[in-house]
Amino acid sequence: MNHAIAVRAKSINIVMAKLLKPIPIQGIRIATFASGIRYQGREDLALMELSEETQSAVCFTRNAFKAAPVILSERHLNTATPRYLLINAGNANAGTGLQGITDAENCCGHVADLTGVTTQQILPFSTGVIGERLPASKITDAIPDLLAKLAPDNWEEMAQAIMTTDTFAKWFSVEVPLASQTISITGVAKGSGMICPDMATMLAYIATDIKVDKETLERLLQDALAVSFNCITVDGDTSTNDACALLATGACGVDWALLDTSDKEAFFKALKTVMQELAKMIVQDGEGAGRFIEIRVEQARSCEEARQVAYTIAHSPLVKTAFAAADPNWGRIIAAIGRSGLEALDMDKVSCFIGNHRLYHRGTVDPDYDEATAKAIMEKSEVGLKVTLDRGTQSALIWTSDLTEDYVRINAEYRS
Amino acid sequence: MNHAIAVRAKSINIVMAKLLKPIPIQGIRIATFASGIRYQGREDLALMELSEETQSAVCFTRNAFKAAPVILSERHLNTATPRYLLINAGNANAGTGLQGITDAENCCGHVADLTGVTTQQILPFSTGVIGERLPASKITDAIPDLLAKLAPDNWEEMAQAIMTTDTFAKWFSVEVPLASQTISITGVAKGSGMICPDMATMLAYIATDIKVDKETLERLLQDALAVSFNCITVDGDTSTNDACALLATGACGVDWALLDTSDKEAFFKALKTVMQELAKMIVQDGEGAGRFIEIRVEQARSCEEARQVAYTIAHSPLVKTAFAAADPNWGRIIAAIGRSGLEALDMDKVSCFIGNHRLYHRGTVDPDYDEATAKAIMEKSEVGLKVTLDRGTQSALIWTSDLTEDYVRINAEYRS
Repeated sequence: MNHAIAVRAKSINIVMAKLLKPIPIQGIRIATFASGIRYQGREDLALMELSEETQSAVCFTRNAFKAAPVILSERHLNTATPRYLLINAGNANAGTGLQGITDAENCCGHVADLTGVTTQQILPFSTGVIGERLPASKITDAIPDLLAKLAPDNWEEMAQAIMTTDTFAKWFSVEVPLASQTISITGVAKGSGMICPDMATMLAYIATDIKVDKETLERLLQDALAVSFNCITVDGDTSTNDACALLATGACGVDWALLDTSDKEAFFKALKTVMQELAKMIVQDGEGAGRFIEIRVEQARSCEEARQVAYTIAHSPLVKTAFAAADPNWGRIIAAIGRSGLEALDMDKVSCFIGNHRLYHRGTVDPDYDEATAKAIMEKSEVGLKVTLDRGTQSALIWTSDLTEDYVRINAEYRS
Repeated sequence: MNHAIAVRAKSINIVMAKLLKPIPIQGIRIATFASGIRYQGREDLALMELSEETQSAVCFTRNAFKAAPVILSERHLNTATPRYLLINAGNANAGTGLQGITDAENCCGHVADLTGVTTQQILPFSTGVIGERLPASKITDAIPDLLAKLAPDNWEEMAQAIMTTDTFAKWFSVEVPLASQTISITGVAKGSGMICPDMATMLAYIATDIKVDKETLERLLQDALAVSFNCITVDGDTSTNDACALLATGACGVDWALLDTSDKEAFFKALKTVMQELAKMIVQDGEGAGRFIEIRVEQARSCEEARQVAYTIAHSPLVKTAFAAADPNWGRIIAAIGRSGLEALDMDKVSCFIGNHRLYHRGTVDPDYDEATAKAIMEKSEVGLKVTLDRGTQSALIWTSDLTEDYVRINAEYRS
């Protein structure tokens, strides 16, 4: 898994380069600790310290079944400027009722007591098993050690500490040479392809050293989410604990408000790249996931209907099992498009391609379709599927994985 | 598989009784034939002859990708009263463009030529592989034999002839003792639990000997569909060829229009029973399906939102794999409810039960929840899951199956 590739963004031309370690972000210090919440012999706690000047934007799960730390973090964000992010792996503190809120609050209170900030300035995040009480004392006991270990270059350790079913640590860094000076963006994420609600959660933390006001930061986060983490789907299940934070320290002295349009574009492209690469790593890291599938739906009347078709294909177990077998079973794909619920969809205008090879055209198999060619394309580890609807100008892109016997075995056997 | 149970409906009290064979319906004759379209050594063609007095209502797939026989049957139904239903297994005649329409039309024309009715009075149905041309000459060659073999008691043979991936023939019969005399309803269906769009299709044919006008028949079909075939879901995929026909011959002399309310209720209850039993057989017959799951969602604001929650649970691969392992993984079920998209859903008011055992209540695990008890309930071959939302009076019921490694293997390997 090529997770250590980094991007050096030059103007809006991105140049790929390998980095050995994530680039530290001035204004942020990180510590990790092995508290033994669930896992033995590995770190499972991370504390991020944000400078006083840091602005934070956080987007949480849309699942109505929100974990205690999500409820508490939303509450804290509404009343104060965050100074510490406290993240644990191994226990999601979800489905734990009022007790869960109290436990999360105790952990935050402990950080506050030892640092002199308010409890509301601490944002808690949890990922792991749903429905078991958070062993809060293991976390509070670790806080003095975490505070003592805070350092600027612990990003990779953090990416490791927040893992649950992940098989590799996910991080991505870019340097963006703007007109005045080079700025940096570094992100870490966790979440294996299955996005299991019980070993819950996608978590992502992306930081930059430029100065951005809170309102703009929230808009940048939403815009980048729409083309990154919100484009991935593995099994359609979303979690109780999902969260994505974007942090801007302002420590490099560059102010977003003073950038010209080309620099703003370069910055957003770099941010988008970091978040897209992290999102792709999550899809690629599914246990049981054999193939990475990019589905592009074009010529739709609206983005929404393009996404609707793309998701119907991506969530079809029959399409996903066909991809697992590298079987160009275009009947399954076309049937999925047909049932996606688009109004007055004319299947005679729809075309469908595997890679650049057209399978389906004008209501039937393409006369030039060749099964061996299609199969060869599908046998690769990354496969592109394109659908054109011929009824508009809008498009959508999503990433997903195939459905293998391993997926079922892992998910059926996980708790036993 | 207990597919040969029949129901004797007495007033609206249903009495179960075993029948050895489906009850013939006066006014209908059936023939089957082994034409070798795809399968060897078994019958794969069925012809149903309807008396001149028979009224027909047919509901077709809502998939926009409609097979040629669906397009043609809809056209024929709009212009004439059907006299013959011609059904083949092994080839869906779907994704075959204009050629597919011509092939289906030729088959109908052949029946018309040999019987003296018009081509529009023949309804074609196909099920099988998508995207391969229908070997129409094998069908037309068989029509003289089919016509010669027509007989009233070939219902079970028809149930066998229309099978594709089905592992058993599906039929169900009831006798309904009304005030004046006893009437009969017999139905046959095909479709294995996977409802595979490539080995396509759910097909169902239900006939009764009472007289019903076309408009009422269509309403009865819609009402019974809503609580039977439209309640089943296995993998969320619908097919290009799905069709359900309700046929009323009127041959027993009983007229729906003259029945009193209690007899009308008895009839509808019996019709519903036939269609529900056939629908359940389809779910039970999934290769790879280990468990039959009944999901009931209660106290919703509307039927639609109750169905939305039920379908989100039923389509969650994580819930389905947990059922495969008999794992009472309530976090997965609650997370599915949470992401079902209901407006202002308060998870603290939601309760969830396996059988009668409550797993989840007021935002957390029920204090009396016992994992061993829940697991014992889930280990049975039929499992009930109930969700109460505490926000209204409406409910929904759906039937589905679990997701096993076999499902993936069968669907990944099918074409290879």
